[in-house]
Amino acid sequence: MNNDGQKIIEIGETEALRRALSVFKPVGTTLVGPGDDAAVISVSDSRVVITTDTMVQDHDFRLEWSSGFDIGYKAVTSNIADLVAMGAAPRALTVALVVTKETPQAWLEDFASGLQSACDRHAPECQIVGGDLASGEQIVIAIAAHGDLESRQPILRSTAEVGDLIVIAGTLGKSACGLALLSSNDETLAASYPDIVSIQLRPVPDFALGLELAAVASSMLDVSDGLSLDAGRLASSSSVSMNIKKELLEGYAAILEQAAQSINSRDSEAQTVSEWDWVLHGGEDHCFLATVSPTATLPRGTKVIGEVIAKGDSDVYLSGEPLSPKGWDSVTG
Amino acid sequence: MNNDGQKIIEIGETEALRRALSVFKPVGTTLVGPGDDAAVISVSDSRVVITTDTMVQDHDFRLEWSSGFDIGYKAVTSNIADLVAMGAAPRALTVALVVTKETPQAWLEDFASGLQSACDRHAPECQIVGGDLASGEQIVIAIAAHGDLESRQPILRSTAEVGDLIVIAGTLGKSACGLALLSSNDETLAASYPDIVSIQLRPVPDFALGLELAAVASSMLDVSDGLSLDAGRLASSSSVSMNIKKELLEGYAAILEQAAQSINSRDSEAQTVSEWDWVLHGGEDHCFLATVSPTATLPRGTKVIGEVIAKGDSDVYLSGEPLSPKGWDSVTG
Repeated sequence: MNNDGQKIIEIGETEALRRALSVFKPVGTTLVGPGDDAAVISVSDSRVVITTDTMVQDHDFRLEWSSGFDIGYKAVTSNIADLVAMGAAPRALTVALVVTKETPQAWLEDFASGLQSACDRHAPECQIVGGDLASGEQIVIAIAAHGDLESRQPILRSTAEVGDLIVIAGTLGKSACGLALLSSNDETLAASYPDIVSIQLRPVPDFALGLELAAVASSMLDVSDGLSLDAGRLASSSSVSMNIKKELLEGYAAILEQAAQSINSRDSEAQTVSEWDWVLHGGEDHCFLATVSPTATLPRGTKVIGEVIAKGDSDVYLSGEPLSPKGWDSVTG
Repeated sequence: MNNDGQKIIEIGETEALRRALSVFKPVGTTLVGPGDDAAVISVSDSRVVITTDTMVQDHDFRLEWSSGFDIGYKAVTSNIADLVAMGAAPRALTVALVVTKETPQAWLEDFASGLQSACDRHAPECQIVGGDLASGEQIVIAIAAHGDLESRQPILRSTAEVGDLIVIAGTLGKSACGLALLSSNDETLAASYPDIVSIQLRPVPDFALGLELAAVASSMLDVSDGLSLDAGRLASSSSVSMNIKKELLEGYAAILEQAAQSINSRDSEAQTVSEWDWVLHGGEDHCFLATVSPTATLPRGTKVIGEVIAKGDSDVYLSGEPLSPKGWDSVTG
């Protein structure tokens, strides 16, 4: 990491970008990469999947908790999750970045490394093909991500059918638990559960499993705002209801129970936390929530958590009881 | 305009977006529109052109000068200009928007109308296919724009050739003049030149002419940061120099001369302004700057301003004298 004290604003857009861009690796489907008015990519069948997601300093991340690398890594991961939730293979990202007068050049280069590292791990055939660097009062990252359906049909939210199984690929509640550990007044708590905190800072959804699940799913999304809210979105889009069985979630809750007890016993000033709140309402795990016909073969590693039922008064039920959404609203928090 | 006093934060993301999205018009090439994890669009030949551009409150716009409509309109226009500069027809936009706790719902709806209005005027086959709404300390807009090359080759910055003519489609300096009028201490000045101020607030590049110019161009970009800077980018990318002839720019300067005189005589506290500074260094007109073989037929309405010469000590010359870049840097301003 060079120029630790040097600010981006002292270097200027062109030179700051030149240094940061050097870590990005080209891929074969990029026909025109960064540096022109726009990039040109190729897809296999004349359809392209497009999504965008934003992260705002002090709302979606804190500089005390997350390095530039973490933030870049997480931004890429959450965007790629939206592509995979459509059944698409990630191909290209653009990154719009607002930095402040105080942001060091070293932060920018660390952030760029995090972007590339997430591509290396999750989507080696995906390139950062363009971006924009601007100056403002707080750091903002807006990524647009582009995927290739490779002749498959997109997996929508609106096509769940009554009788389908509700299936999860990935973890539930770990990211919210990690956030609670970081937020605790007892600063030693986060250090006691590094694996859980890591899921909050650098989420690692299983994208290969997500694409396998997409291949058999009747509907699908990624759980970014919490199970109750996102299952409700599937239900509402498909005009059905979701009956999630609490006993099928017990495995997710069990591994977070100890962390909840630690927070409740060691941080008496804080609100009491519950592992069930994290599992039912915690966002940012970016696991995949799908509905699958009961006759389909489920990919190994996925988990059935309930079934699709006829539309009732509630979009989501937990073992027959109405479950109100209580997840993240990106405006009101 | 409903709910003038109601803030977005009081309404929440889902409902605020539902109301704002209702103004967006669908187009035939959008296979999956807003509302799922991602959108799906179709292009004619398996290539897609992608660009992103950011606007930050108090850096790229001021709420005192620009309505939500103006800001949405300008954001779309500047992004579409980058697609047209590649020779691509605009097809889809995603809009990442950060609003503040104070932003009224009415502003959001006005902004959305501005987005759609710019599409209606400049690119009726282009749809706003997705977006993201977040909360922060200032308004930030990051648009990603997607275009279709329709079997044409992309027009790059790196392919200008010595002997080519340098050609402009559009206006030069009007937007910078408009900004100077708005910035003046004499508030009656902006009202005296509404047509020029309007170019700053709602730029109207001639995109049809830009695509005609692209069809014969050897290289091309849109002038977003000023002629001196952007001509230098073409020169540098192509390893040539640009010799712009001052007498061929006199028409652009002449129509701004009176406004410069008005500012200099009526606002004695301000720095002296010059119409030539606006023409040579002013950004945001989003006119198209291309190089064209002297044997090609120029589209009617374009203007030759110089010729490409062998690479010299300076990237850009003005009638043989080195012309230093003095345009907009999006980080340092």
